[in-house]
Amino acid sequence: MIRIAQLGAGRMGALHARNAARHPGLELAVIADPRPEAARALAAETGAVVGDFEAVLADDSIRGVIVASSTDQHLDHTLRALRAGKAVFCEKPLDLSLATLNAHAAEFKAAAPRLFVAFNRRFDLHFRALKAKLEAGVVGRLESLHLISHDPAAPPPGFVPTSGGLFKDFTIHDFDTARWLMDDEPAEVFAWGGCLVDPSIGAAGDIDTAKVVLRTAAGRLCMISNTRRSGYGYDQRVEAYGSKGAAMVSNVTNSAVSVWGADGADAAPFPYAFIDRYADAYAAEMDHFARILDGETPSTGYEASVRSLALAEAAARSLELNAVIKL
Amino acid sequence: MIRIAQLGAGRMGALHARNAARHPGLELAVIADPRPEAARALAAETGAVVGDFEAVLADDSIRGVIVASSTDQHLDHTLRALRAGKAVFCEKPLDLSLATLNAHAAEFKAAAPRLFVAFNRRFDLHFRALKAKLEAGVVGRLESLHLISHDPAAPPPGFVPTSGGLFKDFTIHDFDTARWLMDDEPAEVFAWGGCLVDPSIGAAGDIDTAKVVLRTAAGRLCMISNTRRSGYGYDQRVEAYGSKGAAMVSNVTNSAVSVWGADGADAAPFPYAFIDRYADAYAAEMDHFARILDGETPSTGYEASVRSLALAEAAARSLELNAVIKL
Amino acid sequence: MIRIAQLGAGRMGALHARNAARHPGLELAVIADPRPEAARALAAETGAVVGDFEAVLADDSIRGVIVASSTDQHLDHTLRALRAGKAVFCEKPLDLSLATLNAHAAEFKAAAPRLFVAFNRRFDLHFRALKAKLEAGVVGRLESLHLISHDPAAPPPGFVPTSGGLFKDFTIHDFDTARWLMDDEPAEVFAWGGCLVDPSIGAAGDIDTAKVVLRTAAGRLCMISNTRRSGYGYDQRVEAYGSKGAAMVSNVTNSAVSVWGADGADAAPFPYAFIDRYADAYAAEMDHFARILDGETPSTGYEASVRSLALAEAAARSLELNAVIKL
Amino acid sequence: MIRIAQLGAGRMGALHARNAARHPGLELAVIADPRPEAARALAAETGAVVGDFEAVLADDSIRGVIVASSTDQHLDHTLRALRAGKAVFCEKPLDLSLATLNAHAAEFKAAAPRLFVAFNRRFDLHFRALKAKLEAGVVGRLESLHLISHDPAAPPPGFVPTSGGLFKDFTIHDFDTARWLMDDEPAEVFAWGGCLVDPSIGAAGDIDTAKVVLRTAAGRLCMISNTRRSGYGYDQRVEAYGSKGAAMVSNVTNSAVSVWGADGADAAPFPYAFIDRYADAYAAEMDHFARILDGETPSTGYEASVRSLALAEAAARSLELNAVIKL
Repeated sequence: MIRIAQLGAGRMGALHARNAARHPGLELAVIADPRPEAARALAAETGAVVGDFEAVLADDSIRGVIVASSTDQHLDHTLRALRAGKAVFCEKPLDLSLATLNAHAAEFKAAAPRLFVAFNRRFDLHFRALKAKLEAGVVGRLESLHLISHDPAAPPPGFVPTSGGLFKDFTIHDFDTARWLMDDEPAEVFAWGGCLVDPSIGAAGDIDTAKVVLRTAAGRLCMISNTRRSGYGYDQRVEAYGSKGAAMVSNVTNSAVSVWGADGADAAPFPYAFIDRYADAYAAEMDHFARILDGETPSTGYEASVRSLALAEAAARSLELNAVIKL
Repeated sequence: MIRIAQLGAGRMGALHARNAARHPGLELAVIADPRPEAARALAAETGAVVGDFEAVLADDSIRGVIVASSTDQHLDHTLRALRAGKAVFCEKPLDLSLATLNAHAAEFKAAAPRLFVAFNRRFDLHFRALKAKLEAGVVGRLESLHLISHDPAAPPPGFVPTSGGLFKDFTIHDFDTARWLMDDEPAEVFAWGGCLVDPSIGAAGDIDTAKVVLRTAAGRLCMISNTRRSGYGYDQRVEAYGSKGAAMVSNVTNSAVSVWGADGADAAPFPYAFIDRYADAYAAEMDHFARILDGETPSTGYEASVRSLALAEAAARSLELNAVIKL
Repeated sequence: MIRIAQLGAGRMGALHARNAARHPGLELAVIADPRPEAARALAAETGAVVGDFEAVLADDSIRGVIVASSTDQHLDHTLRALRAGKAVFCEKPLDLSLATLNAHAAEFKAAAPRLFVAFNRRFDLHFRALKAKLEAGVVGRLESLHLISHDPAAPPPGFVPTSGGLFKDFTIHDFDTARWLMDDEPAEVFAWGGCLVDPSIGAAGDIDTAKVVLRTAAGRLCMISNTRRSGYGYDQRVEAYGSKGAAMVSNVTNSAVSVWGADGADAAPFPYAFIDRYADAYAAEMDHFARILDGETPSTGYEASVRSLALAEAAARSLELNAVIKL
Repeated sequence: MIRIAQLGAGRMGALHARNAARHPGLELAVIADPRPEAARALAAETGAVVGDFEAVLADDSIRGVIVASSTDQHLDHTLRALRAGKAVFCEKPLDLSLATLNAHAAEFKAAAPRLFVAFNRRFDLHFRALKAKLEAGVVGRLESLHLISHDPAAPPPGFVPTSGGLFKDFTIHDFDTARWLMDDEPAEVFAWGGCLVDPSIGAAGDIDTAKVVLRTAAGRLCMISNTRRSGYGYDQRVEAYGSKGAAMVSNVTNSAVSVWGADGADAAPFPYAFIDRYADAYAAEMDHFARILDGETPSTGYEASVRSLALAEAAARSLELNAVIKL
């Protein structure tokens, strides 16, 4: 059992702590959070003790740290844990500023074998099954990709200003997915978006609906569709088109039950939120972290974070200038 | 253009007359019906003239007769038309009594090349596509068959007493389909049924729900499910299981449109009635009749009628005796 | 029976002529084509006689003309038939040059009640069912639209140079569909495309793959995906997203048969070509033309042609300049 | 943490032991098996120690026993554990002889709150979702039920003679499911079966294919379809028909990925075996056992075992006599 600690006892923290507690190879020893009751409740539930970050850094028996603190602390917490020799599982994003991340490039590169920045799609069995099909050549040469990623309902008030905006908060997953599935680096970005869902999002300076197009040097095209409110659950689909055909990830449904009535056949609803849709993916992330602690190479870290963030910043610039942005 | 006449201007008559009028190789010359206004209206619509059956029989320019008169006249009209040298397209059933049909066996066998008794499933593109798959061996050796055939809503009052009962009126299609798809003659029948839908059907001495099982000499098993009221449209499915896998006919839907809302994804409804579901099949029947007039062999006639009717009578006996009936 | 004539006996001509011949309210009297054998064969099949365009124009008993001649003659033939007082069913496009069409604006507007330029999607039962759902408000306020329109296989050599290019030949359908379904005029166009399928298409100066995005004044977004070769049949889907949910047109399949084997469940293939997929739509177009001859207003004509062509030209400019084009 | 022990370290034993070890409220303390290596390996994997049954019975700190020993020992092990005051989780079947079970009726009834005989379908989320829909009345009054339960491939040689035969080993799940979903006791059974798959199964005196029909006193009908070899994975479907419509459980697939090629759209395969298809259900069973140890009432025990076994014996008699069997 490898001893680890966790920073943060919020919604994502609770999720990761439960997965860590359940993992047979990990012992979640310490939970630290500036809000003592949150830390205490989560520690009680997971069999950990409440501690503080300094003590964790000093404790050599603790080999890994899960950084699930507030977004604005991810970078600081991650760097300090890395410097203390820990392996780090950082909930995305590593940081919201590309310039800041670039400033730490050398340090991050040196610590690459110990830093895992989690992108949940890469651990989803459906997305992985698609990736395997693409690698097996079932669609021939990949030519274009459609990513449909629609949130069920607009985020609560107060979320938008700290989120980094739609592209850095939400589309970032699609940017990473596009890079991963195409295995070909986007060279140009074009983005259109608007506030069609919730005027308060526009008032906060953000958009809630977007269509983004990416083009790689090899000419591959990727279309991304985002909305903050689908009205029908969490819509997560992929369509990959190639020289021999297409491969698709459809939405999963809450059950395999359908009801046939006078108005047609009704399938079960889609999972309502990312926590449900990607529950297995989050557990698989934790398993990956356990393997990293055992010597495996992190599947995504600083490099993937920087690349996705660069796409997000380019998309924001494209939206602002109503023009194509070259990377 | 081959000149034909039609007996009967009811619902099925109207359907057949329209298909005949539209067929490029047929000229629907005469329509006869004891109800003069019905005949007149249908003749006006289809470009035919109103006539009577005796005149049709005497008119050598008329080479074919569509028998769509009332069920109790099918046999008499068919025999007289055959004796006058006509080719006959008889709407099913040829007759509701197996004993009566058996009594005319020799005459019907002699006239076999001129008699077409239509079973619409055999002309449906979906059922035919399944048959082609089975013949191509995609499921290997066929082992069992499920036929789901559910009517959308109970028939109008007054229909049941003249219908011959569920097995002869409705299941008869499944008996014929089973024989056709299995290509193996049922040797035993077991039937359970009841009146679960509409007490007036039970009061009229009939059932509205049934599960029938057939077993062939080779041991193949066929399960038939019937109800007079599905509540969700006209349910017409087939599942064929064999040594290498299965092949299925799903329900068709009214359109390829689905709506995704908070309660899940709703597919378009199924066609509500056999006239919609099998519209193309009825047109294909008429085309088959045109080819019979040109020398093609009827795909189904006296033999198929007798075999299906024997199964229907055996099912009724099985229901009555609560026992297996051997054929 | 209303007498009509047809110009052109090629592939689309044959299709329209057969539908006209089958229509109960139309008499296809004359077929004209510069290639006498083609005209003769089609006339023989449809019961028409071979004639010439001048005689058709002079014959007052002929009230309508189907223009299915070669694309470069559509405009001339249409104008001459309109001037002779005929109603015209013009196979798309009316012309490949926006400037030329604009030059005839006044004349076309005056003749609007007699000119039908057919866009097949508007007559497809699935697209119409979607349109009805949108009008009924099932998705609430429409926010965005995805049109996937993928041809099965690259066109034959020699086609590309006369086609007007991907946007005018193929995407034109999606431009019209977008305008029709959104009921909101695009104000900006952005297009990316490339030659990923067939180098000979690139050599001819055209592209074979495209992603086009439209934005309306109200901020609605429409994404169009095109390829000349899907590898899996003719992919024709629509996804309409709104404030309450989504509505979709899925692909139709050649049959409702699926085969379940060790590798999963295989659905039947999609129709391979537009002629199969839209067969019913073409018949519905002809029925619409018959009704126009009876006084009904054409659903699409000069206006729709000009608007779609303007979008196609803007898309081409966007591709050339790698920039957003405002209309 | 409640301490429990497990008898049996075979395939089902391994599955249950892993679920017990993972359960936060259970401590799997002891594993006993006559094959010492099997016990040792499973104990090492799950953190238990190897022990023997007598010591378990004598150890008051052990409150529950999982009986996953060989089928012929289930009854003896269960009875002895119950007599020692333990709660028992008995892998089905409790016993293969109805007469033997009946002989212990009084003892089992007295111990009912401590005996859980697991039927996995009752713990499957899809079957439970269907049950909830039926209880919510979505299909109105339930009229009939279809259970399709097809194993992927014939069992290994040597299995059949100890299995109790198809009805007691395999159909038993469907008998229990039928009772559960219909909430109405079958009053009559009719069964047909044969050896269509593997002659060695017939040589061992068993069948590999069956269609069974049940009828309740209220007239509800249930059709069960079984085969030992589907050729396409583990087919587990339910169709429930009622007065207002139908509700269905479809097969789940290994992923939501489909591939579209020239031959149509291929869905991902179905899970190959019950261990994969019902993995979550087995974990839910263990959770139910933990709650029983906490005072919850077992959802199924002696009563359900006896009822299902009675149906299995009736089905065997029906097959033998080719006749309806009343219960």
